[in-house]
Amino acid sequence: MLTSSKKNEALRRLTSLGSQIVEDIRRRTFPALKIPSRSVENIKYDRKLGQYVLGDEVIIRNSKNIKHLRPFAQLVWIAYFSKELLKTNKTSTLRDIYYSAQAYNVDFKDQDESDEMITELESIIRMPREDINIYPEERSAIFGDLTIEYTVPGYEGKRLVLTTHPDGVMIGPALTTANFVRTSADKVIVIEKGALFTRFIEEKVHERYRAILIATAGQAPRSTRYLIRRLNKELGLPVYIFTDADPWGMHIAMVIISGSANAAHITDLVTPKAKWAGVWATDIVRYRLPSDPLTEVDIKRLYELKRDPRYGEEIWRREIDEFLRIRKKSEQEAFARYGLTYIVDKYLPDKLREMG
Amino acid sequence: MLTSSKKNEALRRLTSLGSQIVEDIRRRTFPALKIPSRSVENIKYDRKLGQYVLGDEVIIRNSKNIKHLRPFAQLVWIAYFSKELLKTNKTSTLRDIYYSAQAYNVDFKDQDESDEMITELESIIRMPREDINIYPEERSAIFGDLTIEYTVPGYEGKRLVLTTHPDGVMIGPALTTANFVRTSADKVIVIEKGALFTRFIEEKVHERYRAILIATAGQAPRSTRYLIRRLNKELGLPVYIFTDADPWGMHIAMVIISGSANAAHITDLVTPKAKWAGVWATDIVRYRLPSDPLTEVDIKRLYELKRDPRYGEEIWRREIDEFLRIRKKSEQEAFARYGLTYIVDKYLPDKLREMG
Repeated sequence: MLTSSKKNEALRRLTSLGSQIVEDIRRRTFPALKIPSRSVENIKYDRKLGQYVLGDEVIIRNSKNIKHLRPFAQLVWIAYFSKELLKTNKTSTLRDIYYSAQAYNVDFKDQDESDEMITELESIIRMPREDINIYPEERSAIFGDLTIEYTVPGYEGKRLVLTTHPDGVMIGPALTTANFVRTSADKVIVIEKGALFTRFIEEKVHERYRAILIATAGQAPRSTRYLIRRLNKELGLPVYIFTDADPWGMHIAMVIISGSANAAHITDLVTPKAKWAGVWATDIVRYRLPSDPLTEVDIKRLYELKRDPRYGEEIWRREIDEFLRIRKKSEQEAFARYGLTYIVDKYLPDKLREMG
Repeated sequence: MLTSSKKNEALRRLTSLGSQIVEDIRRRTFPALKIPSRSVENIKYDRKLGQYVLGDEVIIRNSKNIKHLRPFAQLVWIAYFSKELLKTNKTSTLRDIYYSAQAYNVDFKDQDESDEMITELESIIRMPREDINIYPEERSAIFGDLTIEYTVPGYEGKRLVLTTHPDGVMIGPALTTANFVRTSADKVIVIEKGALFTRFIEEKVHERYRAILIATAGQAPRSTRYLIRRLNKELGLPVYIFTDADPWGMHIAMVIISGSANAAHITDLVTPKAKWAGVWATDIVRYRLPSDPLTEVDIKRLYELKRDPRYGEEIWRREIDEFLRIRKKSEQEAFARYGLTYIVDKYLPDKLREMG
């Protein structure tokens, strides 16, 4: 999808929201907003889509109600402010929004409150906040033979090949909104650790395995998840995710694949066809990896995941059980036990063969 | 300095270390190593250099002593391994080293132990671990009109202008070791927060104030501090550091300027002429910034800084006292209270005028 059309769509939805309010006032009724409910009862796991979605329940926020007046005004201001961001081609962060409100004498008691309003706005316009130029702080990186064309002001039409900088290219607003022009890659490899991402670049994994490499640097920021989805949907590239072998690494993969419950109101951040390729609990045994014992917290987390509807498929159940059996965890770097390049020369091709 | 000459120097020092040991064995004496002591008594603050340095005390590690044998072997292995890294043009991380040791049946009880040995090796060869291709995980970013020329394998002689990617360019091994070719900038602006770095790029601070912009993303990684030093020394650019207005932000600036006690054995990571330009405690008052009360921990930290020899200069003493008087702290984003561009349009030029 072209970014300018996405921007226009966001502007259209924000304008329509404002028009409804103006319309109500003209008709001399108190303006009211319908907000999709994000209460636990209204969050459902859609097995077909392989992700959480919201049900039909809505909340009516009516300015007639004195208790609703404050969040009503806050929400309208957030909508106004994001429209300004889009019109002036500026980006902002959640933190910026909180402070910016003070310039307009809009009162938020803390950032949690303004974050919550931004989430409500997302659920009303059914678009992620990145589409209204609100970005998180975190950054991750990409590297590989993909030519992009920027759409941000001052760079429109300029192109960059993502092998230009051997430390990797930052995934920020400019990259997330760029168009894809050309690639020779036939897959995407997503890596939890920055150090391993650097190793993969040095060992030319992008050439040897025709891959676009992405470092999530821990839990993937939403803009990175959005980019992974675009690579899968727009370019048809299969996605393989490599994390540490522990419940937290598993869940990094899962959030990329099936999304998170608190983003159930947004449906275009997930990549249901992406695959968790390792490091599995069974890999710890198979490759005799150096490991640490699971902690109490790790084990508690595994039992939580067992009850989570996203973890229904065979591979997840098998690996959770194996973790609980061996009571061990390993990091991606543990493969260095067999030399720095073993993970690239042996483990990666093994895995790609099995997964393909 | 050309990177290849630095690499050769590192190889020379590692080889010389090995030769001494071989020499001892040939002479049929037990090999011994002189290691600069990094004990508190031997760490001195050098007012003239404006940084911590090691005194003359050395520790003798003698393989004749059964208690010394294990750390002696560990240290020799680290030296061997880093020489291999240099020779094969591979980079590694502290974590990688810990796991790699297992491939050689060299035993480290945990990563703390291998990290400590790497630090000892640094102090023997008097070079930072980045010079022997050992990097940390953290990344930060740079943006501005600076043309660099890579020296890493596969990219030798290739050039990049650091305005190519509007999300900023990652500071990793390739960038840190690149040569500087050309710049139109007349200053460096270092920024603690990634969000503000993005704002500065969007508002074209690099053009309007002819600046190279660097995001530290919190405490600056050593490779970033090393790069800041190079920009100051090799290009003669003044460096201005902007952090949050709290004791932790202050200290981010201080570590860039004067280094840290645990890197006292390395003298080329500091930029003594760099200046902390804000956000000051006095700025909280002057600009009536939104603020939070200082916590117990913040206040304790301020009293610690008061006793720290690096904080002897007037500006630091004044700001510490002001923090303690007003008992408040603010973040860089707090300027958004006056609109998103106020920090760029008003605060930044104010500060540059005063500091210049």
